[in-house]
Amino acid sequence: MTIECPTPRHEEEVVLLGHGAGGRLTEELLDTLVLPAVGEAEGPLEDAAPLPGRPDLVMSTDSFVVSPLFFPGGDIGSLAVHGTINDLAMRGAWPLALSVSLIIEEGLPLSELRAVMASLGKAAQDAGVPVITGDTKVVGRGAADRLFINTTGVGQRHAPMCPSAANARPGDVVLLSGPIGLHGTTVLSTREGLGFEGDIASDSRPLHRLVHALAPLGAAVHVLRDPTRGGLAASLNEIARDSSAAVEIEESAVPVPEAVASACDLLGLDPLVVANEGCMVAFVDPEAAEKALTAMRSLPEGAQAVRIGEVLHEGPRGRATLRTLVGARRIIEMPLGEQLPRIC
Amino acid sequence: MTIECPTPRHEEEVVLLGHGAGGRLTEELLDTLVLPAVGEAEGPLEDAAPLPGRPDLVMSTDSFVVSPLFFPGGDIGSLAVHGTINDLAMRGAWPLALSVSLIIEEGLPLSELRAVMASLGKAAQDAGVPVITGDTKVVGRGAADRLFINTTGVGQRHAPMCPSAANARPGDVVLLSGPIGLHGTTVLSTREGLGFEGDIASDSRPLHRLVHALAPLGAAVHVLRDPTRGGLAASLNEIARDSSAAVEIEESAVPVPEAVASACDLLGLDPLVVANEGCMVAFVDPEAAEKALTAMRSLPEGAQAVRIGEVLHEGPRGRATLRTLVGARRIIEMPLGEQLPRIC
Repeated sequence: MTIECPTPRHEEEVVLLGHGAGGRLTEELLDTLVLPAVGEAEGPLEDAAPLPGRPDLVMSTDSFVVSPLFFPGGDIGSLAVHGTINDLAMRGAWPLALSVSLIIEEGLPLSELRAVMASLGKAAQDAGVPVITGDTKVVGRGAADRLFINTTGVGQRHAPMCPSAANARPGDVVLLSGPIGLHGTTVLSTREGLGFEGDIASDSRPLHRLVHALAPLGAAVHVLRDPTRGGLAASLNEIARDSSAAVEIEESAVPVPEAVASACDLLGLDPLVVANEGCMVAFVDPEAAEKALTAMRSLPEGAQAVRIGEVLHEGPRGRATLRTLVGARRIIEMPLGEQLPRIC
Repeated sequence: MTIECPTPRHEEEVVLLGHGAGGRLTEELLDTLVLPAVGEAEGPLEDAAPLPGRPDLVMSTDSFVVSPLFFPGGDIGSLAVHGTINDLAMRGAWPLALSVSLIIEEGLPLSELRAVMASLGKAAQDAGVPVITGDTKVVGRGAADRLFINTTGVGQRHAPMCPSAANARPGDVVLLSGPIGLHGTTVLSTREGLGFEGDIASDSRPLHRLVHALAPLGAAVHVLRDPTRGGLAASLNEIARDSSAAVEIEESAVPVPEAVASACDLLGLDPLVVANEGCMVAFVDPEAAEKALTAMRSLPEGAQAVRIGEVLHEGPRGRATLRTLVGARRIIEMPLGEQLPRIC
């Protein structure tokens, strides 16, 4: 009888889809491999970072690999504009300019590229944000899946608003600008032909005007986050962790459209982990909460804004919890890995 | 007898590899499809663009798709840092910060990702340019070829130096910071196993210190360009076109390493069209030419700087020409399409 060596755990030695999902595996990859290499300062990972020596300016980058390229409510072009505008906005900044870099698979029909670029251009124009520079690469057939777009943006902060995932405080009111789950379920349904795509559309939209509407509240706006990959669950967990805060939301207060609920039921997904591209969570000082709600509701993209929870004075610090319809409390887990690949 | 409709010219209706090569097809794609969509102001296409309202700051973006990931003299990580630093430098700017965005194919060994990130981090540190923000996406097997990296940078201009491809003037002296052809032939030889890769290495390096050394010459520095995709031929053509200038270089003055010449002979390539990642062409006022050469030669990356030509007072405007060893003059053609795919 021989004792065999344990089989190498190859699955741990290569990049997994889940490493890109915005959950625990992504955190691990960043913490153990990416951030040590670039020597980035420790601290909360934010959607955008201040420029050295120019703290009034912030920079953010995002590569978009969504599949399919076109879906109800948007396409990779508009999504790439909205996504980076929103990352800048979540740092309390007004976007000044975008760069756009394309990686195109040889053989992509020019008509599709033209449609994507027209949509990208229109999204930028509608948002009032110029595309000032770009790059185009083409790789051979099979070396990329149709089209990937990187957008990077520079924004100017609305002083004295200085939102950060580390700024949540006990007593803060948690606001949500609109219903959740639309983007992720729409893209998934379109890709897989599930049939929900007739009833729902991505919420992809720019949020910089919504943030601008909050600017008069200044430092009373503690945290802004758009719950993209990993959904509301990931955003609330990150905020709870970075602020050492006990975040609690009311299940009944979180707006989930009926078609999203049906799709999630079918797919065995929790709407809390589904990506959004046009809603925002805001943690604000309780005294400013009503004003913030009113300001958000004054704009179409915040018309359905609601209060969904608060930061507890006493509670599990670093944790996000959900108070259910029957009054129980459950922990909102950080999503582990990839439940919805290629969603943005 | 029936008259058949002409067969659709499918080859014209899809994206070709040549659309990403930096030559005439790239120009066409940008002019007819990309730029009209984003409504970019007409004018010369530069390596970097000023930020609206902040003309002292410039922004540049580049996606790197080089294959293989590792090659003599560098890898996709160091290349991604050098490439964007150089694009900023060519607008006379000092790089302030970079963003890094990864698109990773599922299954990439973590050891390779770690090696690339370590190299990227070292390149940024050696250059003194911080990586301040990033993004990581993972796509399924076969949806990307291993790893693509976008870097975007913001730089601060060295006033009053304001180089532009449109600023070449009759009488300008054309300087080249070092030998050409090393990067492209090295990558190609490594990828195809041609055997030259033992004798040559990529010239990938940052050029911002070289540009800084020219800053005291101020407005006497008219044009800076790093001849990457499309090589020196594309850069000289772009400058000639954007400046309506008659650019002439001396064949005998252009330094081509022996191994590059051998590789090009074998491959049927003109060294003038081969990509470089660590040399720079500068058009300077004739009265400043000697000072510029001295300044460039004071740094290792400019130690082999030479004068290669001039802008003619009389000559074919908008054209770049080569005076050959036997005294004949030939037009340097803008490369059409892709002779060296996936080179950066």
